[in-house]
Amino acid sequence: MSADPLVPETRVLAVASHVVYGYVGNKMATLVMQSLGCDVSPLNTVHFSNHAGYRQLKGTRATADEITALYEGLCQSHLTDFDVMLSGYTPSAAAVEAVGAIGQDLQRKAEKNPGSFFWVLDPVMGDLGRLYVNDDVVPAYKKTIKHADLILPNQFEAEVLSGIKITSLSTLAEAITVIHATYNVPHVIITSVQLSKLPESSSAAAAQSPNNLTVIGSTTKSDGSPRLFRVDVPALDCFFSGTGDMFAALTVARLREAVFAAGPQLRTTKSWVSPDDVKAADLPLAQTTVKVLASMHSVLEKTMEARNAELVATSGQVNEQLDAEERQKQEHLRHTKAAEVRLVRNVQYLRNPVVEFKVQEWRTEDLPAQLR
Amino acid sequence: MSADPLVPETRVLAVASHVVYGYVGNKMATLVMQSLGCDVSPLNTVHFSNHAGYRQLKGTRATADEITALYEGLCQSHLTDFDVMLSGYTPSAAAVEAVGAIGQDLQRKAEKNPGSFFWVLDPVMGDLGRLYVNDDVVPAYKKTIKHADLILPNQFEAEVLSGIKITSLSTLAEAITVIHATYNVPHVIITSVQLSKLPESSSAAAAQSPNNLTVIGSTTKSDGSPRLFRVDVPALDCFFSGTGDMFAALTVARLREAVFAAGPQLRTTKSWVSPDDVKAADLPLAQTTVKVLASMHSVLEKTMEARNAELVATSGQVNEQLDAEERQKQEHLRHTKAAEVRLVRNVQYLRNPVVEFKVQEWRTEDLPAQLR
Repeated sequence: MSADPLVPETRVLAVASHVVYGYVGNKMATLVMQSLGCDVSPLNTVHFSNHAGYRQLKGTRATADEITALYEGLCQSHLTDFDVMLSGYTPSAAAVEAVGAIGQDLQRKAEKNPGSFFWVLDPVMGDLGRLYVNDDVVPAYKKTIKHADLILPNQFEAEVLSGIKITSLSTLAEAITVIHATYNVPHVIITSVQLSKLPESSSAAAAQSPNNLTVIGSTTKSDGSPRLFRVDVPALDCFFSGTGDMFAALTVARLREAVFAAGPQLRTTKSWVSPDDVKAADLPLAQTTVKVLASMHSVLEKTMEARNAELVATSGQVNEQLDAEERQKQEHLRHTKAAEVRLVRNVQYLRNPVVEFKVQEWRTEDLPAQLR
Repeated sequence: MSADPLVPETRVLAVASHVVYGYVGNKMATLVMQSLGCDVSPLNTVHFSNHAGYRQLKGTRATADEITALYEGLCQSHLTDFDVMLSGYTPSAAAVEAVGAIGQDLQRKAEKNPGSFFWVLDPVMGDLGRLYVNDDVVPAYKKTIKHADLILPNQFEAEVLSGIKITSLSTLAEAITVIHATYNVPHVIITSVQLSKLPESSSAAAAQSPNNLTVIGSTTKSDGSPRLFRVDVPALDCFFSGTGDMFAALTVARLREAVFAAGPQLRTTKSWVSPDDVKAADLPLAQTTVKVLASMHSVLEKTMEARNAELVATSGQVNEQLDAEERQKQEHLRHTKAAEVRLVRNVQYLRNPVVEFKVQEWRTEDLPAQLR
């Protein structure tokens, strides 16, 4: 018998999108957290047929009032005993504010017991240089994340939140420092930084790791300064939807596990901020990131194998008689479907990660001058 | 290493309710089927804060048009490669018809490959002698179930569908026979018949099994006559919500497994109807029912233990100063929450059932005259 692969009992309020087919948003996050033993309450901000990567979808968006009413429904029946809230895609500025109000209400309910409630916020606004939400969602997030314990922006979202264009490793460090300071948010992970694509890091870093993804995180010290750590993982040559949601969900489960493993002191500390003598690479957040990325790497590797097999099996399925534009659309649908993350039959990699990545403390002053 | 506990790969379109907190409808069914390895696409007919057992809830119902639009969204992106549809609670007659149209469209898409699509329909209309849907939902179901492959009425719903009051074992057999014939539905399971409560079976059956629940099922022969089987399980002294949904979801996974185990012939037969020489107790449906009930029994036993512990831990939580009515309401909420099925940390009982119940062919002519 192997050790119990489940994390400590954890009740999670998960606020994000729902899709009938495929794995993004709550559809991804719920199963990931449940597989690790969390009791998940999914409050769905949209109900779509499929994710936006297909470039067409049908369904409905919840209004801010509908989101608030669902939460009031929980309150009136005393169903708010959540240990963690994970909030993700929210379709409008008013809805972001409604979710923000839920987070703050849960914090108020828990304020007599520091550490008994923790809010992980994924500020879903855009990617790869462009916003995919309305402009007014940005200020709504800027207000809301001041209350979160951990945020998980991607590189572009970190730029939006910090106001700093990330063009080098030192501007990346600067962006994290600014985010900690501006929003008073104790934990940050910037998911998926492609260092090799940073123009100023063209020499050493790029040469060392042409196909690496880098994840950078930090937990503040008591003076507000960052404790930066870094994990490099091999990038897979395929675009998958829902990986941000998988990252966030695994982080919820593994961070709670790491904080419990650190002993009763930390988990009764507000926002689970480790004492100043804990080094960056030893932070629960750093240990969490390593496990999360290991699980993700295996699931995505299995997904890529299955995708390749499906693309072979379905090649020639698109009617050659169609005009070029329609054929391209059908090919896009076929490729997008084939790349849906294969989660259900690979949950063992969530429970028992098989690869091991290394986390290192990350000090910009150690870098050669041209990379800083 | 134990054998792989997952069932054959199965894509399921699951149409039922969603609740943020607790386990009923799709919230129950999705996790149950996923735990056994099914790839589930949940199309949610309602989005409620909690189940109706709390006697108060907030949230929204999907209209028939919204349900239809979600399905059209799947169709336009070719995301309808489902092996099974499981349809449950649907909030209006128009919505039942919309779900019926989806089932029939999926059947049309599969008609060149008999057995490649199977529709399990839980005609959720009421329980314990009363309807909890609008009156017009009944005729909508009566029209719809003519297209289903397997239906899962409880005792009351079987009475509504057959027009026969089930007051004895022979009227129960008669009801199933009538349902097969009237609706041309090849598989029926009547979940939770309390034989000891049937007035005419007060002597022998009741004496043998004062606290048993009986599940009766049947797959037709080629002449339309029933092949009846029966499984008795010890009843647990507690009311749980969502058990019908758990039963339905486990049945989807285990029936597909049993049909695959029966060999390629059966699974390429329309509606998976076994040849006439297969005895009632050897039917895939009968073997399925045994496994399903074994899993359920363990999960509900664990739930009852956890419920009892929670009730002890929260006793005295309700303010004694409240007036009698309000105190009663608060006590009801406390008891309802405590009885939520403990699914997440008990999925091993879904995967590897540990108890073994017996299935027997059930012939009314074998019974003493007073029980027929």
